[in-house]
Amino acid sequence: MTAGVEALFAERARWLKASDVRELLKYTQDPSIISFAGGLPSQDAFPRDELRVIFEELLQEDRLPALQYGPTPGDPALRRELTSLMARRGIDASADRTVVTHGAQQALEFLGRVLLDPGDIVIATRPTYLGLFTALATYRPTYHDVPLDEDGILTDVLEDDLRALALDGIRPKFIYVVPTFHNPTGTSISARRRRRLADLAATYEVPVIEDDPYHDLRFEGDPVAPIASMNREGWIVYLGSFSKTLAPGFRIGWAHGPPALIQKMALAKQGADLFTNGFGQRVAERYLALGMLDRHLPRIRALYRRKRDVMLARMQETFPDRVTWTRPEGGMFLWVTIPSELDTRSILPAAAAQRVVYVPGHGFFAGTPEPNHMRLNYSLPSEPDIEKGIGILGALLDRAIRSSLPGPPLIGA
Amino acid sequence: MTAGVEALFAERARWLKASDVRELLKYTQDPSIISFAGGLPSQDAFPRDELRVIFEELLQEDRLPALQYGPTPGDPALRRELTSLMARRGIDASADRTVVTHGAQQALEFLGRVLLDPGDIVIATRPTYLGLFTALATYRPTYHDVPLDEDGILTDVLEDDLRALALDGIRPKFIYVVPTFHNPTGTSISARRRRRLADLAATYEVPVIEDDPYHDLRFEGDPVAPIASMNREGWIVYLGSFSKTLAPGFRIGWAHGPPALIQKMALAKQGADLFTNGFGQRVAERYLALGMLDRHLPRIRALYRRKRDVMLARMQETFPDRVTWTRPEGGMFLWVTIPSELDTRSILPAAAAQRVVYVPGHGFFAGTPEPNHMRLNYSLPSEPDIEKGIGILGALLDRAIRSSLPGPPLIGA
Repeated sequence: MTAGVEALFAERARWLKASDVRELLKYTQDPSIISFAGGLPSQDAFPRDELRVIFEELLQEDRLPALQYGPTPGDPALRRELTSLMARRGIDASADRTVVTHGAQQALEFLGRVLLDPGDIVIATRPTYLGLFTALATYRPTYHDVPLDEDGILTDVLEDDLRALALDGIRPKFIYVVPTFHNPTGTSISARRRRRLADLAATYEVPVIEDDPYHDLRFEGDPVAPIASMNREGWIVYLGSFSKTLAPGFRIGWAHGPPALIQKMALAKQGADLFTNGFGQRVAERYLALGMLDRHLPRIRALYRRKRDVMLARMQETFPDRVTWTRPEGGMFLWVTIPSELDTRSILPAAAAQRVVYVPGHGFFAGTPEPNHMRLNYSLPSEPDIEKGIGILGALLDRAIRSSLPGPPLIGA
Repeated sequence: MTAGVEALFAERARWLKASDVRELLKYTQDPSIISFAGGLPSQDAFPRDELRVIFEELLQEDRLPALQYGPTPGDPALRRELTSLMARRGIDASADRTVVTHGAQQALEFLGRVLLDPGDIVIATRPTYLGLFTALATYRPTYHDVPLDEDGILTDVLEDDLRALALDGIRPKFIYVVPTFHNPTGTSISARRRRRLADLAATYEVPVIEDDPYHDLRFEGDPVAPIASMNREGWIVYLGSFSKTLAPGFRIGWAHGPPALIQKMALAKQGADLFTNGFGQRVAERYLALGMLDRHLPRIRALYRRKRDVMLARMQETFPDRVTWTRPEGGMFLWVTIPSELDTRSILPAAAAQRVVYVPGHGFFAGTPEPNHMRLNYSLPSEPDIEKGIGILGALLDRAIRSSLPGPPLIGA
């Protein structure tokens, strides 16, 4: 019978494959494992008391709109609040250019649905958020990747590539970036490069998808305005999320962009699931309208800043010389680079045996993966677990590097 | 600029079109309109007090799983509760053959994604749920429709069609039915025809998609077991929903079926939106585990039964002779048929001018629409509004029928 139903699968079903990182999530369900692998917020960052107030308010609302069916593009009051939120970030936004989605992930999937025929070019950084690959998998784009450094995507390389593609008559469908506290590296795009990106988008008429879920999680350094604030011609699609600043469990994200594109995304939404859960939408609306987000953010930032500091200090103490890492000014991740002759996948089993897990960097590359990276998350584990887990990783890295070095033969071993 | 982004649209984007019924939803936001158009539950059917208890319980849970990211196929505890729920309906279910989705609508979209190449055959009743068309739009199936009567889909016709298709070497991808209190007609498939459907699915190796959101809304008559309970070989995909028995605002539905298919649907879920909102899932789990669904259902049934009775009685009083309608034993809809020379779309503007709306039947047909039907919803409007609105519709139908009849010329008009 199983064979029977498989014979009915569409051609595209073969592109539906499991993500390694989502598979690693099972470890995060086991409290005896120290997980640097997920992208989960700390439960200590959830605004429990604020939610109690909001829930009671929603249960008192006339006609209980939080529980009812709602309009496909999203709750009108929430879209007005999102407009204000984006305005505070410098974006000239409007409610009718906004569609509320089940997380920014769903907006990515809709962008694929509306924009991508098989073989179309998508430009992404090297490395990039790996949920992009699962979101777009059945639309089968061809990825073109552009390196990044501590100031984000290398816009000089990007411009050369856009020019070369244009000479070949190729117009990419979009450029995907995570501008602030990038997943997986923790780096941010500088203001100068953001302006450059906005200009390149307009010059080459290629939309930039600016996926900005970590925007509000800055612990230090000056805020940098979104790319969407630097372009008046509408070539930027801005994606936001409440998963990191309220809670992932409500699955509330949104997309803001050119009207024709947002309208098609809303039609995709209609077929996909009718509308984003109204309860989560009303919670997000209240959270913004009652000023709770602004009051709660300092608590999340202080919590994650301490965790990052503990992680960085412990890495400094225990990681061997030939290992380097990023020092993010916010967000939830940092990116470790080990000597290029080593492979972080080979070290993972030994780490898991000592009940510590991380994500090998391979999955974050659209093209040939570099084997010598790992992504570490510091938002979820407790400070003592970070101390302990990083110590274990340090010892394992030390052993891996020593055993890869040429040296005198071991005597008596 | 808008022209610019439109030039980037994929081929499939042209198939993303608005649904008439979703457009009509805007009327339901205006309390001065009597709407028989939506498919909305009454807000009086929402279990407000139970939700207050559940919310507090969720805020007390250790590690707050309702607010955190969760596994892609769904909350394990909810999937266990769904297994018990399906078992009570006679289905030999298991948690690992269940995927939780953002409403059953999302399960339909995933079935399209996994199963349909362009031109593949989908069999549906005539008429059928119109959300099927939006869910599958970009997958471009060819619909084959089979008539129904007061006992549901005509299985003799279906068998002839399956045989004829098989002779042509065509194996349809699936047969879609709403077995209980069908949307839009309110009819249910008899037990005999359900068994026949289960047999035909196994004989022709064509899955039956059994979309059963109204299962628990029976006011009278004997319950009929789902088709999924009548087939041990796994050719039935069973779709369930909490939108009608808890609240639509949580967007909790599920699919249960063959392991290979459910696994692919879960992979589609991973790319689409990572997981179904965990808050809604935990609410549904508590609602089941605490026995609240069973205690609350009699209240919903009594409420909708009264509304249906008011509607039927008022139709009997005011609808002209040549109009007929179904008498559902449960659910939220009934289906009105007017003389075949008339078109329910032509009457809608006059009804809307008197602040009454309904859905013309056209949108529910995969093939050539029959112009002379309307779907009426009785779950949302109040009893006085049903009285008043049906009276207005009755007068309009009377006038429309009179003016279509040949008769003596009007004198002095």
